[in-house]
Amino acid sequence: MTTSFNPIPAERVGDQSPSIWVELTALAAESRAVNLGQGFPDGPAPKFVTEILKKISKKPGLVEAHQYTRGFGHPKLVEMLSKWYTTFYKVNVNALEDILITVGAYHALYYAFQAWINKGDEVIVIEPAFDCYGPQIRFAGGIPVPVLMQLRERAETAAEFKINFTELEEKISEKTKMIVINNPHNPTGKLFTLSELESIAELAKKYNLIVVADEVYEFHVEKHLDMIRFASLPGMFERTISIGSAGKVFSVTGWKLGWAIAPKNLLAPLKTIHQNCAYTCSTPTQLAVAKAFAYEFPKYFNNSKKSYLAYKLPKEIAVKRAKLAEMLATAQFSPIMPEAGFFMVADYTNAKNIPIFTKSSQKESDDPADLLFTRWLCREKKLAVIPLTAFFSTPEMKHSNSSMVRICFFKKGETLDNAKKILDMFAQ
Amino acid sequence: MTTSFNPIPAERVGDQSPSIWVELTALAAESRAVNLGQGFPDGPAPKFVTEILKKISKKPGLVEAHQYTRGFGHPKLVEMLSKWYTTFYKVNVNALEDILITVGAYHALYYAFQAWINKGDEVIVIEPAFDCYGPQIRFAGGIPVPVLMQLRERAETAAEFKINFTELEEKISEKTKMIVINNPHNPTGKLFTLSELESIAELAKKYNLIVVADEVYEFHVEKHLDMIRFASLPGMFERTISIGSAGKVFSVTGWKLGWAIAPKNLLAPLKTIHQNCAYTCSTPTQLAVAKAFAYEFPKYFNNSKKSYLAYKLPKEIAVKRAKLAEMLATAQFSPIMPEAGFFMVADYTNAKNIPIFTKSSQKESDDPADLLFTRWLCREKKLAVIPLTAFFSTPEMKHSNSSMVRICFFKKGETLDNAKKILDMFAQ
Repeated sequence: MTTSFNPIPAERVGDQSPSIWVELTALAAESRAVNLGQGFPDGPAPKFVTEILKKISKKPGLVEAHQYTRGFGHPKLVEMLSKWYTTFYKVNVNALEDILITVGAYHALYYAFQAWINKGDEVIVIEPAFDCYGPQIRFAGGIPVPVLMQLRERAETAAEFKINFTELEEKISEKTKMIVINNPHNPTGKLFTLSELESIAELAKKYNLIVVADEVYEFHVEKHLDMIRFASLPGMFERTISIGSAGKVFSVTGWKLGWAIAPKNLLAPLKTIHQNCAYTCSTPTQLAVAKAFAYEFPKYFNNSKKSYLAYKLPKEIAVKRAKLAEMLATAQFSPIMPEAGFFMVADYTNAKNIPIFTKSSQKESDDPADLLFTRWLCREKKLAVIPLTAFFSTPEMKHSNSSMVRICFFKKGETLDNAKKILDMFAQ
Repeated sequence: MTTSFNPIPAERVGDQSPSIWVELTALAAESRAVNLGQGFPDGPAPKFVTEILKKISKKPGLVEAHQYTRGFGHPKLVEMLSKWYTTFYKVNVNALEDILITVGAYHALYYAFQAWINKGDEVIVIEPAFDCYGPQIRFAGGIPVPVLMQLRERAETAAEFKINFTELEEKISEKTKMIVINNPHNPTGKLFTLSELESIAELAKKYNLIVVADEVYEFHVEKHLDMIRFASLPGMFERTISIGSAGKVFSVTGWKLGWAIAPKNLLAPLKTIHQNCAYTCSTPTQLAVAKAFAYEFPKYFNNSKKSYLAYKLPKEIAVKRAKLAEMLATAQFSPIMPEAGFFMVADYTNAKNIPIFTKSSQKESDDPADLLFTRWLCREKKLAVIPLTAFFSTPEMKHSNSSMVRICFFKKGETLDNAKKILDMFAQ
């Protein structure tokens, strides 16, 4: 054996800072904790969706369903997405030019940053933020520039998370190329208002920015609220890369299919990278998603009670959201009611029976209090949740926002009931 | 509309030279040609494989089969692959450390180059070569260095494609970091001998190179020949990134699942990139592939006639290979018999009834003769094949190797019969 064989990875790989997700996922598994951490349903996927995949796989089978399909997306899937998003954006979305199918929304984000960000380019990221943006931007050579979303004291709903637009504008420099807007917002569950989105649009125009609109929770919205897709704002389609997720839409996160939608010139470099990277995505699941969207189309736009996306999903979400909110209130956690998505953030610092170290131990460790709390909650009480500081990038932001946790409520009744038993211990 | 919005893509995107694949695929579809071009079966996938996917999708369904799984690969799939490749390599392949599941072998190759190649690093590529290596290496900032594989005059089998190892060694410089070896070889169908692989191993050791062993056709080998996996050579596991494809193994190219296998330190930077790129792959198909490998394991290693990989697949391949060879010989194309894979190359220049321009038109156009021939064959005779020059990178190599085409024979009987009718026209 040649002991001298110790090659050095490419510079772009860099140092991988240990992810707390790896730690918390392992800890949840090891502790056999009730898991309200990661964002995926743990009940059966909708029957009409899995039935479609079953039929596609059936003997004698659709021959072409198991072989390579068009690289930029199965013709039937991009055709359906063109129908849906032309309706949503009120702009003609060309099936063959303006849509790229990817291995989940995560992969579409990777392409967006790789396609447009050079070394030193700055990207505005509103924090707290889904924790992949920062690493993906840095991996493309860019610099994520965080803008803090503030929550007023005693806030009760996620609508009260507010961007300070003066601060946002101050953060824009000559190097700013892009802004990422995540709406509905993870982890807070905030749904951006028309006025907020218009303010972002104005800045995007003024400073000539590309907007990455991560809208994966677009169907997980409270019924009385309006989901405003960024590309539907006047003049915004031409500068927006909209990101969607079939896994989120149809509650099949394991299918790992997503898309980027943008005008031809914005999408072209993403396609180039795709041709060097995955080249084409899974055919049977693309076909199944196309069929699921086709099945839903008339139901959804007629607001039928038979519609999964217009009716069943929002209803299921609403019931589970209310259930978790009640559980948390009983436990004297202060929940911030989300308007969309399937996460809720809650302040745990007024709950009883929590060791004091979780409130004041910052001096003992570099780890923020909420991380210490979630470790303790998982290890000692067998309940896994995510510390909100996982969604902040700087130590300062972490330490000034360490009183909350993010909890996923899109879980089956049994899981929520088991969580309730644990949370009830804090109420006594 | 802001007419000034015309952002510039990231430098890494570069200029995309128009791919002749795009042209030929479009031409085949437009001409409604019999398609022996692209490398995938057009008949039904093996029933036992699609049945597994059907069962996984079935009501009430395996809940976890439709949600996110472990990022580096489904535990059941990496466990199975560890069993198979530990047997093949005679080295302990650790399921959790040494295997990364990817969106097809193509995606694993992308990761391998991104993970190890810096700007200016050189990578030895044996040509003709699968046409993604060059663009993927350049996309990582590297320089592909071609080494020509020569075929002697009047050669009859792909074994007669030979590497000149003196020339190969001369091409190695201080900047050479890696060599790509594709075995079984696409497009030629050559299976590398032990002696050839040992020569490569010797150079890899001498010059401290990483070896990327693209072995996606590892089960498509003539029964009497030995598939020698590069990582099984003494001392080679530690420097080899082996690439495999579930789509190729189980004739379901549309499932887009592959893997990279390498010792922990070689695989680590690929995993880092994966965490920024796709993060995790499709769960239901990973589970199906795991079950297909589990089903095959005892049959394959007992060399049972019930084994798809040990018996049915090689038999099917042999029958189709013989059929195409006969068709080509009748048409006075000179086939070079492959030893593995599902492609055959053939010299068309002695066939009758081919317009003379295909033999001597280099002066009239920059396009090599075989490209002109394949365009004519597709447009006028409705048969789609691939010019061999698509697998060479330099104009010089293209023009001195433009008398052959690559033909895929892993097609259903009806397709081959239709191709025969067309080829018979050249015999008259």
